[in-house]
Amino acid sequence: MDTLAEILALADKYERQLPQAAEMPPPPIGAEIAGWIEHTLLKPEATAAQVKVLCQEALQYHFASVCVNPAYVTLVSALLSGSPVKTCAVVGFPLGATLPTQKVVETLACLENGAVEIDMVINIGAMKGEAYGLVYNEVQTIAQVVHNQRAVVKVILETALLRRKEKIIACLVCKAAGVDFVKTSTGFGPGGATVEDVDLIYRLVGPQVRVKASGGIRSLETALAMIRAGATRLGTSSGVQIVKEAVA
Amino acid sequence: MDTLAEILALADKYERQLPQAAEMPPPPIGAEIAGWIEHTLLKPEATAAQVKVLCQEALQYHFASVCVNPAYVTLVSALLSGSPVKTCAVVGFPLGATLPTQKVVETLACLENGAVEIDMVINIGAMKGEAYGLVYNEVQTIAQVVHNQRAVVKVILETALLRRKEKIIACLVCKAAGVDFVKTSTGFGPGGATVEDVDLIYRLVGPQVRVKASGGIRSLETALAMIRAGATRLGTSSGVQIVKEAVA
Repeated sequence: MDTLAEILALADKYERQLPQAAEMPPPPIGAEIAGWIEHTLLKPEATAAQVKVLCQEALQYHFASVCVNPAYVTLVSALLSGSPVKTCAVVGFPLGATLPTQKVVETLACLENGAVEIDMVINIGAMKGEAYGLVYNEVQTIAQVVHNQRAVVKVILETALLRRKEKIIACLVCKAAGVDFVKTSTGFGPGGATVEDVDLIYRLVGPQVRVKASGGIRSLETALAMIRAGATRLGTSSGVQIVKEAVA
Repeated sequence: MDTLAEILALADKYERQLPQAAEMPPPPIGAEIAGWIEHTLLKPEATAAQVKVLCQEALQYHFASVCVNPAYVTLVSALLSGSPVKTCAVVGFPLGATLPTQKVVETLACLENGAVEIDMVINIGAMKGEAYGLVYNEVQTIAQVVHNQRAVVKVILETALLRRKEKIIACLVCKAAGVDFVKTSTGFGPGGATVEDVDLIYRLVGPQVRVKASGGIRSLETALAMIRAGATRLGTSSGVQIVKEAVA
């Protein structure tokens, strides 16, 4: 495990010159892209009826997962039971400004209710305030809690709120903490995934840690651009539309 | 305690005709308005340094409270210690889509860290899906937890996402659950406080339950309009500006 001092020294180096991007898996062909998509509904006004439709679509189109707020994890997990579609829950979402212990408790509740993937928002204010130790400890703790239950952890950076150097540090923290994915955005911030950010993240953490692009992905063209930049998961509420474009 | 059936019957009646507004306290004169303002900083990128400035301003201007995300409650509580300015924390914020147990745990953590006012977001999706029992139980539970610790509970409706009838039901649920304040908005939704919504809420819950207007209050004129409609607390990040206008 890298110490924080080592991470910051490495960030200085990578700020001057990013590492080469590792080789990527071949991009999906046609309807294969469904397996790269997390079918997502996170708006606060989403009803149980809408979440049911989301799950039916995920089963029909063979999406990788269904991603919802904690209040709907039990429902989603029941509806997807016995299928290969995963249940994904967001934690500390979308501000990331809850307490570390709170994120742990929320993570455990989601796992207990059937989530097998956890998308946690980092403490963005701590990043901006250079309280990197707090960020590191929080990410490491959540990664351990999730991995203890053989689940998958994705860490959301909310890239639109971070400067380039902060993105680099956050990526190295995530890599050192052994997370499974680094994810760009909540979809509630001032901006979503960009090709430039996905490329930066993939260069820093790939291929051991995977990249989930999210926020503003509404077309096949955007989806493929994210994949070419290094993303292997796409968080979007436009999955059905994207698959229809892919097979058209 | 009203049953849900009684609440829904009453909502039908009030949908046709709202009750008269109860008499209001006299509006604040000049700098008095500071005591009606909750000095608020909820953006995810807020740093500890910015929160310290917020607390210094609150002490200087004699605001009613400082309102922050859970991650900063300990800091705020320490900085305000010994002063009459209250520490206020948001819970289930801003989507309201976490689990009821999660909101309880988060509330308890905030109270333990020094918060004496809790602003909780209702489960908006449950409101939209007519799962009113869930909403009622959650609000009632949080009110009990907060009152057990002699703290104050405000319930955020996120009015911009609710239809008129849903606002009426939510208000009656809050009143029946014995909350201290009904609050209009998170500031992260598609709209903030409106005079019409504050008036509606005050007619339904006032004066026993008070009204906190929040979201988009950036001038003395808007602040006073909210007060004339029935608000006795204003959540805003423009408190210093508003007080300066009031004494100019």
